[in-house]
Amino acid sequence: MFITFEGIDGSGKSTQARALAEALRALGHDPVLTREPGGSPGAEEIRRLVLEGDPDRWSAETELLLFTAARRDHLERTIAPALAAGRIVICDRFADSTRMYQGLSRGDLRATVDTLHRLMIGRDPDLTFLIDIDPETGLARAKSRNGTEERFEDFGLGLQRKMRDGFLALAREFAPRFRVIDGTRAAGAVAADVLALTLDALGARG
Amino acid sequence: MFITFEGIDGSGKSTQARALAEALRALGHDPVLTREPGGSPGAEEIRRLVLEGDPDRWSAETELLLFTAARRDHLERTIAPALAAGRIVICDRFADSTRMYQGLSRGDLRATVDTLHRLMIGRDPDLTFLIDIDPETGLARAKSRNGTEERFEDFGLGLQRKMRDGFLALAREFAPRFRVIDGTRAAGAVAADVLALTLDALGARG
Repeated sequence: MFITFEGIDGSGKSTQARALAEALRALGHDPVLTREPGGSPGAEEIRRLVLEGDPDRWSAETELLLFTAARRDHLERTIAPALAAGRIVICDRFADSTRMYQGLSRGDLRATVDTLHRLMIGRDPDLTFLIDIDPETGLARAKSRNGTEERFEDFGLGLQRKMRDGFLALAREFAPRFRVIDGTRAAGAVAADVLALTLDALGARG
Repeated sequence: MFITFEGIDGSGKSTQARALAEALRALGHDPVLTREPGGSPGAEEIRRLVLEGDPDRWSAETELLLFTAARRDHLERTIAPALAAGRIVICDRFADSTRMYQGLSRGDLRATVDTLHRLMIGRDPDLTFLIDIDPETGLARAKSRNGTEERFEDFGLGLQRKMRDGFLALAREFAPRFRVIDGTRAAGAVAADVLALTLDALGARG
């Protein structure tokens, strides 16, 4: 079972991904917790190439190809072998993040993003948790963390709103695999919902 | 006008690309001479990422995505601006090299290579010179050069033969833009043919 977490900066998705991995481990599962961009040694190298340096040094198209290369490596080296071994894979961000960010900056590329995904990745999550928070909370949390790789923080509230709307639109588009979770509550309450929905989905798969 | 040179290692294609640039310069043109993989600062970084380290560290699919990212950057930053300014662009290797190498190692990827090319590159050369030599000559020349990035040299004569056949097959497939040149002759004789054919093509374009 392949589970992904999506959400705007400060939504708590990384915390929730970790919490789900720990809860499943406590229940006797052996999940793999990974993240994008990165998640395999080669993908981490590509991640550095994309994220370091002048933000304008890659066009949207070149960046899309680099992120797809990183995702392909991550899929081949980390995700697919774990799934083949019967393990649950929990991934912090996946292709929906690419769809959302490209949709924001270059909406005209959405068809290209999807074609490239079908051609070179071809694997969708079985379950995607969208940890949904209001943009004000997200921005406040993200700022308090002072992250260095959160390239979009500086653009403020308007951008946070657009990112949230973008994720909610994806949750409607891919409704069968999406679960939208209210992330403004205490982390423990959110984690309990995520775990219950995961166990439901695991049960449904037998 | 966008001109590419292709050929097996030791064919003399790089020498011929340089010679054509010099001859055109002497005739008052202002050509841009470039090469792949690489040809722009970003593409050179991607080139290093692909070519350095364990040859098995990238799958054929990931390598294809990385080379396409490098080509996209090269096209955007070097080739397209020069063409837009009315300059002749001469490129040592381009998409045909990708087609040939992937055809050798992973022939099943050919449709993927072509789809990716149409989707993310979408620009074909106006004229492609295949500098054709017999594999024995090519191998002897390549060995005498002792290059460090010619990753295929070690595989010997059988591979050189397959690469030559691969390029000749591409020349048949894309016949209108290909010119197959006998590269076993003296460099000056080859260069004279290349220049004459280039001037023909320039004349035909008015």
